[in-house]
Amino acid sequence: MSSISNRIQQKPWLGWTIFLATILLVFLLGLLASSIVERRAETAALLLPAADISPNEADNSAFKNYYPRQYQSWLQTEDTSFRSMYQGAAMRDMLEEDPRLVILWAGYGFSKDYNQGRGHAHAVHDTRQTLRTGGPAGPDDGPMPSTCWTCKSPDVPRLMAEMGPEAFYSGKWASKGPEINHSIGCIDCHDAKTMNLRISRPALVEAFERQGKDITKVSHQDMRSLVCAQCHVEYYFKGEGNYLTFPWDKGMTVEQMESYYDNYEFNDWIHTISRAPMLKAQHTDYELFTMGIHAQRGVACADCHMPYKSEGGQKFTDHHVQSPLNNIANSCQVCHREKEEDLMASVYNHQRRVNEIRITAEDALAKAHIEAGAAWEAGASEEEMVDVLRLIRHAQWRWDYVACSHGATFHAPVESLRVLGTAIDKAQEARVKLGRILAKYGIDAFEMPDISTKEKAQEYIGLDIEKLEEEKEIFLRTLVPEWIKQYEGKAKASNEIAAR
Amino acid sequence: MSSISNRIQQKPWLGWTIFLATILLVFLLGLLASSIVERRAETAALLLPAADISPNEADNSAFKNYYPRQYQSWLQTEDTSFRSMYQGAAMRDMLEEDPRLVILWAGYGFSKDYNQGRGHAHAVHDTRQTLRTGGPAGPDDGPMPSTCWTCKSPDVPRLMAEMGPEAFYSGKWASKGPEINHSIGCIDCHDAKTMNLRISRPALVEAFERQGKDITKVSHQDMRSLVCAQCHVEYYFKGEGNYLTFPWDKGMTVEQMESYYDNYEFNDWIHTISRAPMLKAQHTDYELFTMGIHAQRGVACADCHMPYKSEGGQKFTDHHVQSPLNNIANSCQVCHREKEEDLMASVYNHQRRVNEIRITAEDALAKAHIEAGAAWEAGASEEEMVDVLRLIRHAQWRWDYVACSHGATFHAPVESLRVLGTAIDKAQEARVKLGRILAKYGIDAFEMPDISTKEKAQEYIGLDIEKLEEEKEIFLRTLVPEWIKQYEGKAKASNEIAAR
Repeated sequence: MSSISNRIQQKPWLGWTIFLATILLVFLLGLLASSIVERRAETAALLLPAADISPNEADNSAFKNYYPRQYQSWLQTEDTSFRSMYQGAAMRDMLEEDPRLVILWAGYGFSKDYNQGRGHAHAVHDTRQTLRTGGPAGPDDGPMPSTCWTCKSPDVPRLMAEMGPEAFYSGKWASKGPEINHSIGCIDCHDAKTMNLRISRPALVEAFERQGKDITKVSHQDMRSLVCAQCHVEYYFKGEGNYLTFPWDKGMTVEQMESYYDNYEFNDWIHTISRAPMLKAQHTDYELFTMGIHAQRGVACADCHMPYKSEGGQKFTDHHVQSPLNNIANSCQVCHREKEEDLMASVYNHQRRVNEIRITAEDALAKAHIEAGAAWEAGASEEEMVDVLRLIRHAQWRWDYVACSHGATFHAPVESLRVLGTAIDKAQEARVKLGRILAKYGIDAFEMPDISTKEKAQEYIGLDIEKLEEEKEIFLRTLVPEWIKQYEGKAKASNEIAAR
Repeated sequence: MSSISNRIQQKPWLGWTIFLATILLVFLLGLLASSIVERRAETAALLLPAADISPNEADNSAFKNYYPRQYQSWLQTEDTSFRSMYQGAAMRDMLEEDPRLVILWAGYGFSKDYNQGRGHAHAVHDTRQTLRTGGPAGPDDGPMPSTCWTCKSPDVPRLMAEMGPEAFYSGKWASKGPEINHSIGCIDCHDAKTMNLRISRPALVEAFERQGKDITKVSHQDMRSLVCAQCHVEYYFKGEGNYLTFPWDKGMTVEQMESYYDNYEFNDWIHTISRAPMLKAQHTDYELFTMGIHAQRGVACADCHMPYKSEGGQKFTDHHVQSPLNNIANSCQVCHREKEEDLMASVYNHQRRVNEIRITAEDALAKAHIEAGAAWEAGASEEEMVDVLRLIRHAQWRWDYVACSHGATFHAPVESLRVLGTAIDKAQEARVKLGRILAKYGIDAFEMPDISTKEKAQEYIGLDIEKLEEEKEIFLRTLVPEWIKQYEGKAKASNEIAAR
């Protein structure tokens, strides 16, 4: 100390410099404090009271004036031009990219049509468009049940409130057509009055209850994932009434859900080539997310898919739900100090590796189905085939558990590859057994059919795509406009009642 | 600003407080600067000039007085009591834990004896002890070539300098026995005079040269990994002279090295059951490390396995090379701010998943070997078996690429699982083909032998372990003491020459 005070005594300007620098620092701190106070005032001034919105308001534009930034960013979910590794494609046709999928889903809707998903704003439109929902001619026609609407629209909470979940799930998909018009939006995740996060769909609440957990007691950070987990999960349609149910009673791993389905002897369909009792996995996004490092370090879905953003002095959650790769600065780089291209490269490295093994599993599965078909033709008995069919069922379920999951290669690449490893093993084990069965019936060499394009594969499984497309065209031209007219008429009437 | 200066005018004590706080801060900074200067002085005082150590000094204790902290921590490599997930076991017998390995290596040394590796300090002792080096009765006896010594001792650079690498590699392992006594130490990685990191073994330099790269131009940070990569890599013994060679000419991925070996038509041995031309992978640690996130973010081997440490005011590199899990505070937590138990859990989660799939691959491989053996017995022709044998060769190489690698499940879990996925696919594909071959020769049902213990598996492959142990016992009792006597006699003579 003595040397410093000596120096100050020797050089009086040094003391003054320190003094003035301190004053300047304090002044800047004052400016910062003032700015914070002003921003808060601005925020308060901008927010209108949200008291007069109905709790089941399905029209997202009703929230526009109250939450303009959230609304504007939600509108951007229309834009799904970002295509990760596969940039450039307008709308990826997964069956064209990989015709093996047609074989894997023979006898099930996904073999007709399977495109890459688009942003939330397209949910209702794309559900009407896909060949999977068919071309119903009236309310009791078509291949799919009403349950399929559950995740598509904020009209659903209103309908469920009006008729109860059982009635909502019952009937054909077309029966609810005139009631559903708005795509995924505000009240799916928010309480209309308080804007608190809320669980609007019963299946998640019920799944928690069956596991002895109370979803009302989770943290706000958990809610920032659980609102997504209402839909981005594996589910099935239980019983005659197609009651939407999550198979989580034993846990969320691929083995735990497999065992749940096996105990329940549940099948989504019987495969038309191999005759195996099949399971279709549905976007196991939340399940695989929980098994990855980001979930384990406390990151929520919204942290990366809806990161905070600042506009005009206001910090808000970006409601343009999208791939974080399209927004690395606000998502990844909040925690990771690497260059954008390095972060991107790491994600793609994992994606490439997992995809390679996914394709390997598909290849084995396609062969197993076709060889099983040949074994049936050759005269194999039910008893001879029982082990083979169980292996095929489990192998495809495990493959699909990863393949169906958005972002699995990022969320949990290690678990994904573990699961795919077991899928390959089981599919190939089925083929080892099939080789013996085929040999027994005198079939030695075996030539695979040409399934090198979507069209060839669909023809091989006996799909009449032209007929399906024609039915769809009629449906879109006649029934859909009718649905929209009915919906708008009802909305107008209810607005007039509200205005009186 | 006006409000702050007003306040200061109103409350004169505020200005004085700021002034005094500033003085205090500057005083503390002065103390810190002084402490840094003192530490440097202490460091300089402690280091003796290292000028009088011979460039090929193999006796690590010669460095003791010059680098006491590094030497003391190097001594601790004797302690390998930390056993990761498997704590408690004294020395893990891998063949006992997993008898399938005996089948996989039938006809090769590893089927006789395979224990978990121990710390560097045990290298020479453990090499003499293992059944793999056999019980040679004299310099030209025994199963292994001289090349096996290359990575075990700092006596090797001296021998190579004296006789050249070709002569060093030639002859039987026992021929160099009396020349090698010290375990992995200082001059393996350091220049004895400057203590700069150095590459002491030719194979790595030659591998770089063949790829058109100059190892003398790499960064210091790269050297902190490359000194390890002298030994912790895949290699093979090339040609008659068993010249130690890295198969990196096409790259370091499993496919690139596989293609290198295939082009060269290299086999480590012919499998005694399946007659497949096999490859044995050898601790592919560096290769897999480069394919993981830590290498990609610029971390070197030494950063985690030899982290910095501070003792008595001196910062130095901890030469107790060990699992970072035994030293999480100094390794992981330098970058990762998570709790020790959380970091540990993440590592074990990956380890468990990769190990599950590794075992699945082993299971398929063991069956493939045994079924191939049965196909030969049934009368299968070379032509019928050629595809099967290639599939087995590739499947086992891929499995071993991961299985042989220390820390693969941590260094690169995603690449490890990708590689294991292809291993399972190929092993099972071999079995699909074998099923058809066996059926052709009238063999339908197939019962696997009992290989549930190491002893049963070793008996099944026809190993006479008692004889091997007896030979080893004689070797350890007679030849090894002779080697040590010769070595010490020579060292004494050379010290006397030096002292004159």
